[in-house]
Amino acid sequence: MWPDDWQIDHDTLIDAGGYMQKLKMYPYFDIAHYLLTCISVRQDLGTTSLTFSRKHPFSCWLSAMLMSFAGSFLASFLLGEPIISPLKHHQDVILASVVWYLVFYSPFDIIFKLAQLSPIKTGLIVVKEIQRAHKIAAGIKYSARLYPESYLVQIFVGVSKGAGSGVVKIVEQLVRGSWSPANHEILKPSFTTKACVIASIVFTLERHSMYVTAPHDLVYLCVVGFFIYFKLAAILFGVQDALLPIENVICAIFMGGIFDAFAKAVNATKQAVRNNRVMSEEEILAKEREKVQKRKKTQAGNQMNGDSKKNN
Amino acid sequence: MWPDDWQIDHDTLIDAGGYMQKLKMYPYFDIAHYLLTCISVRQDLGTTSLTFSRKHPFSCWLSAMLMSFAGSFLASFLLGEPIISPLKHHQDVILASVVWYLVFYSPFDIIFKLAQLSPIKTGLIVVKEIQRAHKIAAGIKYSARLYPESYLVQIFVGVSKGAGSGVVKIVEQLVRGSWSPANHEILKPSFTTKACVIASIVFTLERHSMYVTAPHDLVYLCVVGFFIYFKLAAILFGVQDALLPIENVICAIFMGGIFDAFAKAVNATKQAVRNNRVMSEEEILAKEREKVQKRKKTQAGNQMNGDSKKNN
Amino acid sequence: MWPDDWQIDHDTLIDAGGYMQKLKMYPYFDIAHYLLTCISVRQDLGTTSLTFSRKHPFSCWLSAMLMSFAGSFLASFLLGEPIISPLKHHQDVILASVVWYLVFYSPFDIIFKLAQLSPIKTGLIVVKEIQRAHKIAAGIKYSARLYPESYLVQIFVGVSKGAGSGVVKIVEQLVRGSWSPANHEILKPSFTTKACVIASIVFTLERHSMYVTAPHDLVYLCVVGFFIYFKLAAILFGVQDALLPIENVICAIFMGGIFDAFAKAVNATKQAVRNNRVMSEEEILAKEREKVQKRKKTQAGNQMNGDSKKNN
Repeated sequence: MWPDDWQIDHDTLIDAGGYMQKLKMYPYFDIAHYLLTCISVRQDLGTTSLTFSRKHPFSCWLSAMLMSFAGSFLASFLLGEPIISPLKHHQDVILASVVWYLVFYSPFDIIFKLAQLSPIKTGLIVVKEIQRAHKIAAGIKYSARLYPESYLVQIFVGVSKGAGSGVVKIVEQLVRGSWSPANHEILKPSFTTKACVIASIVFTLERHSMYVTAPHDLVYLCVVGFFIYFKLAAILFGVQDALLPIENVICAIFMGGIFDAFAKAVNATKQAVRNNRVMSEEEILAKEREKVQKRKKTQAGNQMNGDSKKNN
Repeated sequence: MWPDDWQIDHDTLIDAGGYMQKLKMYPYFDIAHYLLTCISVRQDLGTTSLTFSRKHPFSCWLSAMLMSFAGSFLASFLLGEPIISPLKHHQDVILASVVWYLVFYSPFDIIFKLAQLSPIKTGLIVVKEIQRAHKIAAGIKYSARLYPESYLVQIFVGVSKGAGSGVVKIVEQLVRGSWSPANHEILKPSFTTKACVIASIVFTLERHSMYVTAPHDLVYLCVVGFFIYFKLAAILFGVQDALLPIENVICAIFMGGIFDAFAKAVNATKQAVRNNRVMSEEEILAKEREKVQKRKKTQAGNQMNGDSKKNN
Repeated sequence: MWPDDWQIDHDTLIDAGGYMQKLKMYPYFDIAHYLLTCISVRQDLGTTSLTFSRKHPFSCWLSAMLMSFAGSFLASFLLGEPIISPLKHHQDVILASVVWYLVFYSPFDIIFKLAQLSPIKTGLIVVKEIQRAHKIAAGIKYSARLYPESYLVQIFVGVSKGAGSGVVKIVEQLVRGSWSPANHEILKPSFTTKACVIASIVFTLERHSMYVTAPHDLVYLCVVGFFIYFKLAAILFGVQDALLPIENVICAIFMGGIFDAFAKAVNATKQAVRNNRVMSEEEILAKEREKVQKRKKTQAGNQMNGDSKKNN
């Protein structure tokens, strides 16, 4: 089907995974992440974003920093480490601040407009997904050293590192002076969050050699591919949530769906049995009386409706 | 009054207290606690609880976990320890998750309905109160090792362990997408919280051999008895808050009550003195004028009221 | 201009700065701070403050404590230390509680009324500003030991210690059952917060011998003078925010102002160039057509407006 030279063997893939893990995040991957984060902050501000950035520059900067380092902030909070530690590294903060400045204050809004162009945006997203996988793997590695026995903690920290912005957004909105408690990531997890959960579980299982027995480099490559593939599918083909069907099935089976249906069926059966039974004289009389009363009520109701319509 | 065999001597009580302290909480006492917590989460969700649990299973689970481990979460937060540490022990999380699943998704809602039955509920509550005393004692023991000199910290940690759910509820409601800042435990502490404060103070004083000189086992037994007695009184006889009278008296004496009354009395005396004084001619005239104006106003007011009544 | 004896030499100033640094904060400076904090809590409660303090004494006390130790709470939170640690020292908590009690429950409200008197208030504020400088210096010293390389962390901790109450107020309002997310210190920093930022930057630079090369005692004295001077200016002469003009200039230059103006100018130029150009026949025709259509539309619109007016 394809030429012999195209064949990709196992070792090449493992090499690619190993190479991908050793990629330096600073500065290019980080820039892509900061750019997309600042753009999402700006879009979240809506049409007033530029006015807001001119009137409240500090609040705007703090918002951008909170979102840019959201994963680290959340992981630090969960692990009881200094919350402020992500601001420890000057070069990261300076890079993020420069990106923030360019997104909000660049002349003719050029950076924002460029980053909105489809090819550039796609490129940035691909780069960001590679960085996301890197962050999840780092988070799980770190927490596995602290709590080697607690898989749940490792998964939580991995998800925080990869998709912490969803939770930190609650605080970030508060910093910007808006508050919408009924609409956050925990209540309606996005596809990205769910993908991070899957990736975290895969990494944790692989770490403890349970169920996942492929070499780490290959697993890493698969996770990166999984992230990029679904993100591109979302952007290019409008696939909103590829996990939704599976999720719906699982919810239908385990989260009450079957039992609810079963309970309904039982109720229906009970009703049917009762209806089929030969009714005693008293029951028949009671039913008749009910019917008569209902008819009267509906007549009275109709009359009242008619009256009120006339009045109008 | 009662047969000789019923007599309970000092040693038996101490033995009972010692035995109670060595009780293992896992799994039976924990199950009772998780059951009651999940039921309270479900009742807090109101009539939409089942719909919510089907639509947002993750948010529902996280809510239940936050409330089930509320005391540990709050104590960890206050003591600067990893917030996530209560999720470290797999067996606890799995047990709580199973209970959560049964409360929300059991076929025909059987677990929920069973747990609502009066005798079962009473049993669960008694078991939970024993666990509460155990948690408070453990919290104070732990914090006393960290801050041996700070009684206030020990009391705070003890109360957090025993009644942390009241404060954690603010976060838990946020996780569920609801937000009611004007209605929380700190503003209107429930009887349980107040009882935990008393128990924490008693344990702390006993630990430092101040004022409380009874043996620890006996104190522990008394606290357990105190918890169970008042909780049962609340359920069986509808005693809402046994501490309210004492509290009202203390508030009346120390929280401004006496001084307010005194200030009022002084004002009244001033007024009286001024009234008794022989009035100067001008004052009398001024008073007369005031009276006339008042009469006119009331007449005008009455007329207006009469008019408005006619209009209606 | 002034007598020879008044001359203040360099050494005297340095001695004064050194003396000021060694001042003990407990109890007099702390009392001034607690007094002003409790009064601000009371004023924030509005006209219902006394009713609230009688109905919710615990919530009121916790509010006052949160605000009194706001800087320490925030710094502990940021540095990952036990949040509860400010409550570790009994004498501080007892002193703050006594001040709280006197402000809210003193007979005839005498303490509150006295503290509102202009000369006493001015004195309290001067004392509090000295304490503020002390707290900032202590915060920076402490964080510089933990993170010697991270200037940003040191500045953040310094500001938290000096002006943490602005951020902690969000939590404090929640404790009191009120919630106003759109109106906090991060969004609209007060002059005090900005002054704390400047002081923190000066202390940090001085610590690392960058740009600021004066002796530490002199720098300290200048910061204290700066705080007192501007606070007194605010109270006595109504200078609301002495930094606002500088800030406005900086915002105008760097936060989009110049680029926005430039973009506007470019747009205007473009427009002018287009208008001056000799138009091609097609363009003229197109313009004419546009005009005609516009006229028609406005006519139609006027008619419609007329119709709708008639209907009304």
